[in-house]
Amino acid sequence: MTYNQLFQTILEKRSFLSIGLDTDLTRIPPHLLDTEDPIFEFNKAIIDATHDLCVAYKPNIAFYEAYGVEGWKSLEKTINYIPKGCLKLADAKRGDIGNTTKMYAEAFFNKLGCDAITVAPYMGIDSVSPFLEYPGKWTVILGLTSNKGSQDFQFLQSDDKELYKHVLSKSSQWGTAHNTMYVVGATHPENFKEIRDIVPDHFLLVPGVGAQGGSLEEVAKYGLNKSCGLLVNSSRGIIYKSNGKDFAAAARSAALELQTQMDQILNQIS
Amino acid sequence: MTYNQLFQTILEKRSFLSIGLDTDLTRIPPHLLDTEDPIFEFNKAIIDATHDLCVAYKPNIAFYEAYGVEGWKSLEKTINYIPKGCLKLADAKRGDIGNTTKMYAEAFFNKLGCDAITVAPYMGIDSVSPFLEYPGKWTVILGLTSNKGSQDFQFLQSDDKELYKHVLSKSSQWGTAHNTMYVVGATHPENFKEIRDIVPDHFLLVPGVGAQGGSLEEVAKYGLNKSCGLLVNSSRGIIYKSNGKDFAAAARSAALELQTQMDQILNQIS
Repeated sequence: MTYNQLFQTILEKRSFLSIGLDTDLTRIPPHLLDTEDPIFEFNKAIIDATHDLCVAYKPNIAFYEAYGVEGWKSLEKTINYIPKGCLKLADAKRGDIGNTTKMYAEAFFNKLGCDAITVAPYMGIDSVSPFLEYPGKWTVILGLTSNKGSQDFQFLQSDDKELYKHVLSKSSQWGTAHNTMYVVGATHPENFKEIRDIVPDHFLLVPGVGAQGGSLEEVAKYGLNKSCGLLVNSSRGIIYKSNGKDFAAAARSAALELQTQMDQILNQIS
Repeated sequence: MTYNQLFQTILEKRSFLSIGLDTDLTRIPPHLLDTEDPIFEFNKAIIDATHDLCVAYKPNIAFYEAYGVEGWKSLEKTINYIPKGCLKLADAKRGDIGNTTKMYAEAFFNKLGCDAITVAPYMGIDSVSPFLEYPGKWTVILGLTSNKGSQDFQFLQSDDKELYKHVLSKSSQWGTAHNTMYVVGATHPENFKEIRDIVPDHFLLVPGVGAQGGSLEEVAKYGLNKSCGLLVNSSRGIIYKSNGKDFAAAARSAALELQTQMDQILNQIS
Protein backbone atom coordinates (compact mmCIF):
# COMPACT_ATOMS: atom_id res chain seq x y z
CA MET A 1 0.00 0.00 0.00
CA THR A 2 1.56 3.32 -1.06
CA TYR A 3 1.40 6.57 0.92
CA ASN A 4 -1.38 7.88 -1.29
CA GLN A 5 -3.31 4.61 -1.23
CA LEU A 6 -3.11 4.63 2.56
CA PHE A 7 -4.43 8.19 2.71
CA GLN A 8 -7.24 7.34 0.26
CA THR A 9 -8.17 4.27 2.32
CA ILE A 10 -8.30 6.44 5.44
CA LEU A 11 -10.62 8.91 3.69
CA GLU A 12 -12.88 6.17 2.35
CA LYS A 13 -13.16 4.29 5.63
CA ARG A 14 -13.24 7.53 7.67
CA SER A 15 -10.78 5.83 9.99
CA PHE A 16 -7.10 5.80 10.86
CA LEU A 17 -7.50 2.96 13.33
CA SER A 18 -5.01 0.11 13.68
CA ILE A 19 -6.18 -2.87 15.70
CA GLY A 20 -3.50 -4.71 17.65
CA LEU A 21 -3.78 -8.47 17.65
CA ASP A 22 -2.02 -9.26 20.95
CA THR A 23 -3.79 -12.57 21.13
CA ASP A 24 -3.22 -14.34 24.43
CA LEU A 25 -4.70 -17.77 25.21
CA THR A 26 -5.20 -16.75 28.84
CA ARG A 27 -7.42 -13.80 27.84
CA ILE A 28 -9.51 -14.99 24.92
CA PRO A 29 -13.03 -16.37 25.49
CA PRO A 30 -12.79 -19.85 27.04
CA HIS A 31 -15.20 -21.41 24.52
CA LEU A 32 -12.59 -20.87 21.76
CA LEU A 33 -10.03 -23.01 23.55
CA ASP A 34 -11.78 -26.17 22.28
CA THR A 35 -11.19 -25.25 18.64
CA GLU A 36 -8.23 -26.54 16.65
CA ASP A 37 -6.48 -23.17 16.46
CA PRO A 38 -7.93 -20.86 19.13
CA ILE A 39 -5.59 -17.98 18.32
CA PHE A 40 -6.58 -17.93 14.67
CA GLU A 41 -10.28 -18.46 15.47
CA PHE A 42 -10.16 -15.47 17.77
CA ASN A 43 -8.32 -13.27 15.24
CA LYS A 44 -10.64 -14.36 12.43
CA ALA A 45 -13.72 -13.37 14.42
CA ILE A 46 -12.16 -10.03 15.41
CA ILE A 47 -11.19 -9.29 11.79
CA ASP A 48 -14.63 -10.28 10.48
CA ALA A 49 -16.26 -7.94 12.98
CA THR A 50 -14.01 -4.91 12.52
CA HIS A 51 -12.30 -4.78 9.10
CA ASP A 52 -14.57 -2.02 7.76
CA LEU A 53 -13.68 0.17 10.73
CA CYS A 54 -9.86 0.04 10.60
CA VAL A 55 -7.06 0.51 8.09
CA ALA A 56 -4.47 -1.77 9.72
CA TYR A 57 -4.10 -4.89 11.83
CA LYS A 58 -1.01 -5.13 13.98
CA PRO A 59 -0.22 -8.65 15.20
CA ASN A 60 2.21 -8.44 18.11
CA ILE A 61 4.75 -11.11 17.23
CA ALA A 62 5.70 -11.95 20.84
CA PHE A 63 2.22 -13.32 21.43
CA TYR A 64 2.68 -15.84 18.59
CA GLU A 65 6.29 -16.80 19.33
CA ALA A 66 5.23 -17.61 22.88
CA TYR A 67 3.43 -20.65 21.41
CA GLY A 68 6.37 -21.78 19.26
CA VAL A 69 5.68 -23.53 15.94
CA GLU A 70 1.93 -23.56 16.59
CA GLY A 71 1.98 -19.84 17.27
CA TRP A 72 3.87 -19.16 14.06
CA LYS A 73 1.25 -21.18 12.16
CA SER A 74 -1.53 -19.09 13.70
CA LEU A 75 0.39 -15.95 12.74
CA GLU A 76 0.72 -17.04 9.09
CA LYS A 77 -2.98 -17.85 8.90
CA THR A 78 -3.86 -14.51 10.48
CA ILE A 79 -1.70 -12.50 8.08
CA ASN A 80 -3.25 -14.35 5.14
CA TYR A 81 -6.74 -13.66 6.45
CA ILE A 82 -6.36 -9.87 6.76
CA PRO A 83 -8.38 -8.44 3.85
CA LYS A 84 -7.31 -5.92 1.23
CA GLY A 85 -7.67 -2.36 2.39
CA CYS A 86 -6.02 -3.18 5.72
CA LEU A 87 -2.29 -2.81 6.23
CA LYS A 88 -0.65 -5.99 7.59
CA LEU A 89 1.67 -4.54 10.20
CA ALA A 90 4.03 -6.87 12.09
CA ASP A 91 4.83 -5.46 15.51
CA ALA A 92 8.19 -7.16 15.81
CA LYS A 93 10.64 -4.41 16.89
CA ARG A 94 13.51 -6.17 15.15
CA GLY A 95 16.96 -4.61 14.69
CA ASP A 96 20.33 -6.17 13.97
CA ILE A 97 23.46 -5.92 11.80
CA GLY A 98 22.99 -5.69 8.03
CA ASN A 99 23.19 -9.35 7.02
CA THR A 100 20.74 -10.29 9.78
CA THR A 101 18.33 -7.44 9.10
CA LYS A 102 18.20 -8.71 5.53
CA MET A 103 16.91 -12.03 6.86
CA TYR A 104 14.28 -10.32 9.04
CA ALA A 105 13.13 -8.39 5.97
CA GLU A 106 12.86 -11.68 4.08
CA ALA A 107 10.97 -13.25 7.00
CA PHE A 108 8.37 -10.52 7.40
CA PHE A 109 7.97 -9.00 3.94
CA ASN A 110 8.44 -12.01 1.67
CA LYS A 111 7.77 -15.15 3.67
CA LEU A 112 4.96 -13.83 5.90
CA GLY A 113 3.72 -11.25 3.40
CA CYS A 114 3.42 -8.31 5.78
CA ASP A 115 3.21 -4.74 4.48
CA ALA A 116 5.03 -3.16 7.40
CA ILE A 117 7.23 -3.98 10.38
CA THR A 118 8.26 -2.10 13.52
CA VAL A 119 12.03 -1.73 13.93
CA ALA A 120 14.27 -0.63 16.85
CA PRO A 121 16.84 2.07 16.00
CA TYR A 122 19.59 1.43 18.60
CA MET A 123 21.92 -0.29 16.09
CA GLY A 124 21.64 2.47 13.48
CA ILE A 125 21.45 2.53 9.73
CA ASP A 126 22.19 -1.10 8.89
CA SER A 127 19.40 -2.21 11.23
CA VAL A 128 16.97 -0.25 9.05
CA SER A 129 18.20 0.09 5.47
CA PRO A 130 17.74 -3.56 4.33
CA PHE A 131 14.01 -3.19 5.04
CA LEU A 132 13.86 -0.13 2.78
CA GLU A 133 14.87 -2.13 -0.26
CA TYR A 134 11.39 -3.68 -0.59
CA PRO A 135 9.20 -1.48 -2.81
CA GLY A 136 5.74 -0.86 -1.42
CA LYS A 137 6.69 -1.97 2.11
CA TRP A 138 6.89 0.14 5.26
CA THR A 139 9.52 0.33 7.98
CA VAL A 140 8.12 1.70 11.22
CA ILE A 141 10.99 2.97 13.39
CA LEU A 142 10.66 3.41 17.15
CA GLY A 143 10.74 7.11 17.94
CA LEU A 144 9.22 7.91 21.32
CA THR A 145 7.59 4.84 22.82
CA SER A 146 4.52 4.70 25.03
CA ASN A 147 5.95 2.77 27.99
CA LYS A 148 7.45 3.96 31.25
CA GLY A 149 10.91 2.78 30.14
CA SER A 150 10.80 5.44 27.40
CA GLN A 151 12.08 7.76 30.16
CA ASP A 152 15.31 5.78 30.59
CA PHE A 153 17.20 6.70 27.42
CA GLN A 154 14.89 8.33 24.85
CA PHE A 155 14.96 11.71 26.61
CA LEU A 156 18.74 11.86 27.14
CA GLN A 157 19.89 15.25 25.85
CA SER A 158 22.73 15.49 23.41
CA ASP A 159 23.56 18.78 21.67
CA ASP A 160 20.39 20.23 23.22
CA LYS A 161 18.26 17.56 21.60
CA GLU A 162 16.73 14.42 23.10
CA LEU A 163 17.81 11.01 21.77
CA TYR A 164 14.40 10.34 20.19
CA LYS A 165 14.74 13.55 18.17
CA HIS A 166 18.18 12.46 16.97
CA VAL A 167 16.59 9.17 15.91
CA LEU A 168 13.83 10.98 14.01
CA SER A 169 16.08 13.46 12.24
CA LYS A 170 18.89 11.08 11.35
CA SER A 171 16.75 8.11 10.29
CA SER A 172 14.42 10.32 8.25
CA GLN A 173 17.40 10.74 5.90
CA TRP A 174 17.66 6.97 5.39
CA GLY A 175 14.19 6.60 3.91
CA THR A 176 11.32 8.86 2.95
CA ALA A 177 7.80 9.55 4.19
CA HIS A 178 6.73 7.03 1.55
CA ASN A 179 8.53 4.00 3.04
CA THR A 180 9.12 4.94 6.68
CA MET A 181 6.84 5.66 9.63
CA TYR A 182 7.58 6.34 13.30
CA VAL A 183 6.21 4.88 16.50
CA VAL A 184 5.18 7.72 18.81
CA GLY A 185 3.31 6.83 21.98
CA ALA A 186 -0.01 8.49 22.72
CA THR A 187 1.20 8.83 26.29
CA HIS A 188 3.42 11.74 25.23
CA PRO A 189 0.92 14.19 23.66
CA GLU A 190 3.06 17.17 24.73
CA ASN A 191 5.82 16.01 22.37
CA PHE A 192 3.78 15.64 19.17
CA LYS A 193 4.23 19.24 18.10
CA GLU A 194 8.01 19.09 18.13
CA ILE A 195 7.92 15.68 16.46
CA ARG A 196 5.83 17.13 13.63
CA ASP A 197 8.45 19.86 13.20
CA ILE A 198 11.06 17.15 12.48
CA VAL A 199 8.92 14.76 10.42
CA PRO A 200 6.00 16.82 9.06
CA ASP A 201 4.94 14.35 6.35
CA HIS A 202 5.58 10.91 7.87
CA PHE A 203 2.86 8.65 9.15
CA LEU A 204 3.07 8.10 12.89
CA LEU A 205 1.99 4.79 14.38
CA VAL A 206 0.53 5.75 17.73
CA PRO A 207 0.07 3.07 20.39
CA GLY A 208 -1.03 3.80 23.91
CA VAL A 209 -4.61 4.98 23.35
CA GLY A 210 -6.90 3.03 25.66
CA ALA A 211 -5.28 0.54 28.06
CA GLN A 212 -2.12 2.68 28.37
CA GLY A 213 -4.06 5.91 28.98
CA GLY A 214 -3.39 8.10 25.91
CA SER A 215 -6.08 10.39 24.43
CA LEU A 216 -7.08 10.41 20.75
CA GLU A 217 -8.03 14.11 20.78
CA GLU A 218 -4.67 15.12 22.20
CA VAL A 219 -2.83 13.04 19.62
CA ALA A 220 -4.86 14.43 16.70
CA LYS A 221 -4.49 18.01 17.89
CA TYR A 222 -0.79 18.12 17.02
CA GLY A 223 -0.20 14.86 15.15
CA LEU A 224 -2.60 15.25 12.23
CA ASN A 225 -1.09 16.40 8.95
CA LYS A 226 -2.61 17.08 5.52
CA SER A 227 -2.50 13.37 4.61
CA CYS A 228 -3.82 12.42 8.05
CA GLY A 229 -0.35 11.08 8.95
CA LEU A 230 -1.64 9.02 11.86
CA LEU A 231 -2.33 5.37 12.48
CA VAL A 232 -3.70 5.14 15.99
CA ASN A 233 -3.53 1.68 17.47
CA SER A 234 -5.65 0.08 20.12
CA SER A 235 -5.13 -3.54 21.14
CA ARG A 236 -6.43 -4.64 24.52
CA GLY A 237 -9.05 -1.85 24.57
CA ILE A 238 -10.74 -3.45 21.56
CA ILE A 239 -10.00 -7.16 21.43
CA TYR A 240 -10.56 -7.89 25.12
CA LYS A 241 -13.67 -5.77 25.59
CA SER A 242 -15.57 -8.94 26.46
CA ASN A 243 -14.40 -12.49 26.97
CA GLY A 244 -17.85 -13.98 26.56
CA LYS A 245 -19.46 -15.31 23.39
CA ASP A 246 -20.18 -11.69 22.40
CA PHE A 247 -16.46 -10.84 22.20
CA ALA A 248 -16.49 -10.01 18.49
CA ALA A 249 -19.55 -7.75 18.76
CA ALA A 250 -18.01 -6.07 21.81
CA ALA A 251 -14.78 -5.52 19.88
CA ARG A 252 -16.76 -4.01 17.02
CA SER A 253 -18.50 -1.68 19.37
CA ALA A 254 -15.18 -0.50 20.90
CA ALA A 255 -13.68 -0.06 17.43
CA LEU A 256 -16.77 1.83 16.25
CA GLU A 257 -16.45 4.24 19.14
CA LEU A 258 -12.90 5.14 18.07
CA GLN A 259 -13.80 5.22 14.38
CA THR A 260 -16.65 7.63 15.10
CA GLN A 261 -14.23 10.00 16.83
CA MET A 262 -11.82 9.61 13.92
CA ASP A 263 -14.56 10.46 11.43
CA GLN A 264 -15.02 13.77 13.25
CA ILE A 265 -11.28 14.43 13.38
CA LEU A 266 -10.92 13.75 9.65
CA ASN A 267 -13.40 16.55 8.94
CA GLN A 268 -10.51 18.89 9.76
CA ILE A 269 -8.63 17.83 6.64
CA SER A 270 -11.30 16.82 4.14
CA MET B 1 23.87 -22.17 33.96
CA THR B 2 24.96 -19.88 36.83
CA TYR B 3 27.81 -17.37 36.72
CA ASN B 4 30.09 -19.74 38.60
CA GLN B 5 29.08 -22.75 36.49
CA LEU B 6 29.82 -20.75 33.36
CA PHE B 7 33.25 -19.79 34.67
CA GLN B 8 33.97 -23.41 35.66
CA THR B 9 32.91 -24.63 32.22
CA ILE B 10 35.24 -22.08 30.63
CA LEU B 11 38.13 -23.31 32.78
CA GLU B 12 37.40 -26.97 32.05
CA LYS B 13 37.01 -26.50 28.31
CA ARG B 14 39.83 -23.92 28.14
CA SER B 15 37.50 -21.92 25.93
CA PHE B 16 35.21 -18.91 26.03
CA LEU B 17 34.03 -19.43 22.48
CA SER B 18 30.44 -18.95 21.35
CA ILE B 19 29.58 -20.32 17.92
CA GLY B 20 26.93 -18.41 16.01
CA LEU B 21 24.44 -20.53 14.11
CA ASP B 22 23.47 -18.06 11.34
CA THR B 23 22.35 -20.92 9.15
CA ASP B 24 21.47 -19.81 5.64
CA LEU B 25 20.22 -22.23 2.97
CA THR B 26 22.10 -20.29 0.30
CA ARG B 27 25.43 -20.82 2.07
CA ILE B 28 25.34 -24.37 3.47
CA PRO B 29 26.86 -27.28 1.50
CA PRO B 30 24.58 -28.12 -1.44
CA HIS B 31 24.51 -31.85 -0.63
CA LEU B 32 22.52 -31.07 2.54
CA LEU B 33 19.69 -29.50 0.57
CA ASP B 34 18.35 -32.96 -0.29
CA THR B 35 17.79 -33.85 3.37
CA GLU B 36 14.44 -33.41 5.09
CA ASP B 37 15.59 -30.54 7.30
CA PRO B 38 18.80 -29.06 5.83
CA ILE B 39 19.10 -26.33 8.47
CA PHE B 40 18.96 -28.80 11.34
CA GLU B 41 21.25 -31.30 9.57
CA PHE B 42 23.81 -28.54 9.10
CA ASN B 43 23.55 -27.37 12.72
CA LYS B 44 23.71 -30.94 14.04
CA ALA B 45 26.93 -31.63 12.14
CA ILE B 46 28.46 -28.33 13.30
CA ILE B 47 27.49 -29.04 16.91
CA ASP B 48 28.80 -32.63 16.75
CA ALA B 49 32.12 -31.35 15.42
CA THR B 50 32.65 -28.43 17.81
CA HIS B 51 30.83 -28.85 21.13
CA ASP B 52 33.97 -29.70 23.08
CA LEU B 53 35.61 -26.48 21.87
CA CYS B 54 32.95 -23.92 22.80
CA VAL B 55 30.81 -22.92 25.78
CA ALA B 56 27.84 -21.46 23.89
CA TYR B 57 25.86 -21.76 20.67
CA LYS B 58 24.12 -18.65 19.46
CA PRO B 59 21.37 -19.30 16.90
CA ASN B 60 20.58 -16.05 15.11
CA ILE B 61 16.78 -16.06 15.11
CA ALA B 62 16.39 -14.05 11.87
CA PHE B 63 17.88 -16.93 9.92
CA TYR B 64 15.14 -19.27 11.18
CA GLU B 65 12.22 -16.84 10.93
CA ALA B 66 13.15 -16.29 7.28
CA TYR B 67 11.86 -19.81 6.63
CA GLY B 68 8.62 -19.38 8.56
CA VAL B 69 7.08 -22.38 10.34
CA GLU B 70 9.72 -24.73 8.92
CA GLY B 71 12.48 -22.46 10.17
CA TRP B 72 10.97 -22.33 13.64
CA LYS B 73 10.85 -26.15 13.68
CA SER B 74 14.55 -26.30 12.75
CA LEU B 75 15.25 -23.81 15.53
CA GLU B 76 13.42 -25.91 18.14
CA LYS B 77 15.30 -29.04 17.07
CA THR B 78 18.61 -27.17 17.15
CA ILE B 79 18.02 -25.80 20.65
CA ASN B 80 17.08 -29.27 21.88
CA TYR B 81 20.21 -30.74 20.32
CA ILE B 82 22.71 -28.38 21.98
CA PRO B 83 24.40 -30.50 24.67
CA LYS B 84 24.88 -29.77 28.36
CA GLY B 85 27.91 -27.60 29.03
CA CYS B 86 26.97 -25.24 26.22
CA LEU B 87 24.84 -22.17 26.82
CA LYS B 88 21.81 -21.96 24.51
CA LEU B 89 21.87 -18.30 23.54
CA ALA B 90 19.08 -16.91 21.35
CA ASP B 91 20.33 -13.94 19.35
CA ALA B 92 16.95 -12.29 19.04
CA LYS B 93 17.50 -8.64 20.03
CA ARG B 94 13.93 -8.35 21.30
CA GLY B 95 12.62 -5.37 23.24
CA ASP B 96 9.09 -4.10 23.86
CA ILE B 97 6.68 -2.83 26.51
CA GLY B 98 6.29 -4.90 29.68
CA ASN B 99 3.33 -7.12 28.78
CA THR B 100 4.96 -7.97 25.44
CA THR B 101 8.43 -8.55 26.86
CA LYS B 102 6.79 -11.04 29.21
CA MET B 103 5.61 -13.00 26.17
CA TYR B 104 9.08 -12.91 24.57
CA ALA B 105 10.52 -14.25 27.84
CA GLU B 106 7.92 -17.03 27.77
CA ALA B 107 8.76 -17.74 24.10
CA PHE B 108 12.51 -18.00 24.50
CA PHE B 109 13.06 -19.19 28.08
CA ASN B 110 10.10 -21.52 28.62
CA LYS B 111 8.80 -22.61 25.26
CA LEU B 112 12.12 -22.84 23.37
CA GLY B 113 14.20 -23.62 26.45
CA CYS B 114 17.02 -21.16 25.81
CA ASP B 115 19.38 -20.12 28.61
CA ALA B 116 19.96 -16.60 27.34
CA ILE B 117 18.58 -14.00 24.94
CA THR B 118 19.95 -10.78 23.45
CA VAL B 119 17.78 -7.71 24.16
CA ALA B 120 17.73 -4.15 22.75
CA PRO B 121 17.70 -1.37 25.37
CA TYR B 122 16.01 1.51 23.50
CA MET B 123 12.66 1.04 25.29
CA GLY B 124 14.22 0.99 28.77
CA ILE B 125 13.52 -0.94 31.94
CA ASP B 126 10.26 -2.70 31.01
CA SER B 127 11.88 -4.09 27.88
CA VAL B 128 14.41 -5.88 30.11
CA SER B 129 13.00 -6.57 33.57
CA PRO B 130 10.47 -9.32 32.65
CA PHE B 131 13.38 -11.43 31.38
CA LEU B 132 15.13 -11.07 34.74
CA GLU B 133 12.34 -12.86 36.55
CA TYR B 134 13.50 -16.26 35.28
CA PRO B 135 16.01 -17.78 37.71
CA GLY B 136 19.10 -19.24 36.06
CA LYS B 137 18.49 -17.40 32.77
CA TRP B 138 20.57 -14.65 31.20
CA THR B 139 19.57 -11.36 29.60
CA VAL B 140 22.21 -10.06 27.22
CA ILE B 141 21.68 -6.33 26.67
CA LEU B 142 23.08 -4.50 23.65
CA GLY B 143 25.82 -2.16 24.82
CA LEU B 144 28.16 -1.17 22.01
CA THR B 145 27.43 -3.15 18.88
CA SER B 146 29.91 -4.32 16.23
CA ASN B 147 28.25 -2.85 13.14
CA LYS B 148 28.83 0.42 11.32
CA GLY B 149 25.42 1.71 12.47
CA SER B 150 26.75 1.67 16.05
CA GLN B 151 28.16 5.10 15.15
CA ASP B 152 24.70 6.58 14.56
CA PHE B 153 23.36 6.83 18.10
CA GLN B 154 25.47 4.78 20.54
CA PHE B 155 28.22 7.42 20.73
CA LEU B 156 25.90 10.41 21.23
CA GLN B 157 27.24 12.34 24.24
CA SER B 158 24.92 13.24 27.07
CA ASP B 159 26.30 14.67 30.34
CA ASP B 160 29.81 13.95 29.02
CA LYS B 161 28.99 10.28 28.57
CA GLU B 162 28.14 8.33 25.43
CA LEU B 163 24.71 6.70 25.11
CA TYR B 164 26.14 3.16 25.34
CA LYS B 165 27.72 4.06 28.69
CA HIS B 166 24.37 5.35 29.96
CA VAL B 167 22.88 2.03 28.86
CA LEU B 168 25.56 0.06 30.72
CA SER B 169 25.42 2.07 33.93
CA LYS B 170 21.65 2.39 34.17
CA SER B 171 20.75 -1.15 33.12
CA SER B 172 23.40 -2.68 35.38
CA GLN B 173 21.16 -1.50 38.24
CA TRP B 174 18.21 -3.50 36.89
CA GLY B 175 19.92 -6.85 37.16
CA THR B 176 23.22 -8.21 38.41
CA ALA B 177 26.36 -9.73 36.89
CA HIS B 178 24.69 -13.07 37.64
CA ASN B 179 21.70 -12.61 35.34
CA THR B 180 22.79 -9.93 32.87
CA MET B 181 25.50 -9.74 30.21
CA TYR B 182 26.33 -7.05 27.62
CA VAL B 183 26.94 -7.21 23.90
CA VAL B 184 30.16 -5.35 23.11
CA GLY B 185 31.51 -5.58 19.57
CA ALA B 186 35.09 -6.71 18.99
CA THR B 187 35.31 -3.94 16.42
CA HIS B 188 35.62 -1.39 19.26
CA PRO B 189 38.69 -2.67 21.21
CA GLU B 190 39.59 0.90 22.24
CA ASN B 191 36.38 1.09 24.30
CA PHE B 192 36.77 -2.10 26.35
CA LYS B 193 38.78 -0.49 29.13
CA GLU B 194 36.13 2.13 29.89
CA ILE B 195 33.39 -0.49 29.60
CA ARG B 196 35.17 -2.61 32.21
CA ASP B 197 35.25 0.41 34.52
CA ILE B 198 31.43 0.52 34.39
CA VAL B 199 30.70 -3.23 34.45
CA PRO B 200 33.79 -4.91 35.93
CA ASP B 201 32.16 -8.23 36.76
CA HIS B 202 29.66 -8.80 33.95
CA PHE B 203 30.17 -11.26 31.15
CA LEU B 204 30.49 -9.54 27.78
CA LEU B 205 29.22 -11.29 24.67
CA VAL B 206 31.63 -10.18 21.97
CA PRO B 207 30.65 -10.56 18.33
CA GLY B 208 32.71 -9.23 15.47
CA VAL B 209 35.82 -11.44 15.69
CA GLY B 210 36.51 -12.92 12.25
CA ALA B 211 34.21 -11.88 9.39
CA GLN B 212 33.67 -8.41 10.90
CA GLY B 213 37.40 -7.83 11.52
CA GLY B 214 37.80 -7.73 15.33
CA SER B 215 40.86 -9.18 17.09
CA LEU B 216 40.72 -11.69 19.96
CA GLU B 217 43.97 -10.46 21.54
CA GLU B 218 42.75 -6.86 21.61
CA VAL B 219 39.45 -7.90 23.19
CA ALA B 220 41.14 -10.06 25.84
CA LYS B 221 43.69 -7.37 26.71
CA TYR B 222 41.09 -5.11 28.34
CA GLY B 223 37.98 -7.30 28.45
CA LEU B 224 39.20 -10.23 30.54
CA ASN B 225 38.25 -10.19 34.23
CA LYS B 226 38.95 -12.58 37.08
CA SER B 227 36.05 -14.86 36.05
CA CYS B 228 37.04 -14.57 32.39
CA GLY B 229 34.00 -12.38 31.77
CA LEU B 230 34.06 -12.91 28.03
CA LEU B 231 32.09 -14.98 25.56
CA VAL B 232 33.65 -14.33 22.17
CA ASN B 233 31.42 -15.25 19.27
CA SER B 234 32.31 -16.26 15.76
CA SER B 235 29.62 -17.26 13.26
CA ARG B 236 30.50 -17.08 9.57
CA GLY B 237 34.24 -17.48 10.29
CA ILE B 238 33.55 -20.96 11.66
CA ILE B 239 30.40 -22.40 10.13
CA TYR B 240 31.09 -21.38 6.52
CA LYS B 241 34.80 -22.23 6.48
CA SER B 242 34.03 -24.79 3.75
CA ASN B 243 30.86 -25.52 1.84
CA GLY B 244 32.01 -28.94 0.69
CA LYS B 245 31.43 -32.31 2.33
CA ASP B 246 34.26 -31.46 4.76
CA PHE B 247 32.31 -28.46 6.19
CA ALA B 248 32.09 -29.88 9.73
CA ALA B 249 35.78 -30.75 9.89
CA ALA B 250 36.64 -27.33 8.50
CA ALA B 251 34.41 -25.69 11.13
CA ARG B 252 36.15 -27.72 13.84
CA SER B 253 39.52 -26.61 12.59
CA ALA B 254 38.46 -22.91 12.64
CA ALA B 255 36.97 -23.32 16.14
CA LEU B 256 40.11 -25.12 17.32
CA GLU B 257 42.26 -22.24 16.16
CA LEU B 258 40.27 -19.79 18.29
CA GLN B 259 40.10 -22.21 21.24
CA THR B 260 43.88 -22.64 21.16
CA GLN B 261 44.32 -18.87 21.42
CA MET B 262 41.75 -18.78 24.23
CA ASP B 263 43.63 -21.51 26.12
CA GLN B 264 46.70 -19.25 26.11
CA ILE B 265 44.69 -16.21 27.16
CA LEU B 266 43.11 -18.12 30.06
CA ASN B 267 46.60 -18.78 31.47
CA GLN B 268 46.48 -15.14 32.57
CA ILE B 269 43.76 -15.88 35.11
CA SER B 270 44.28 -19.52 36.11
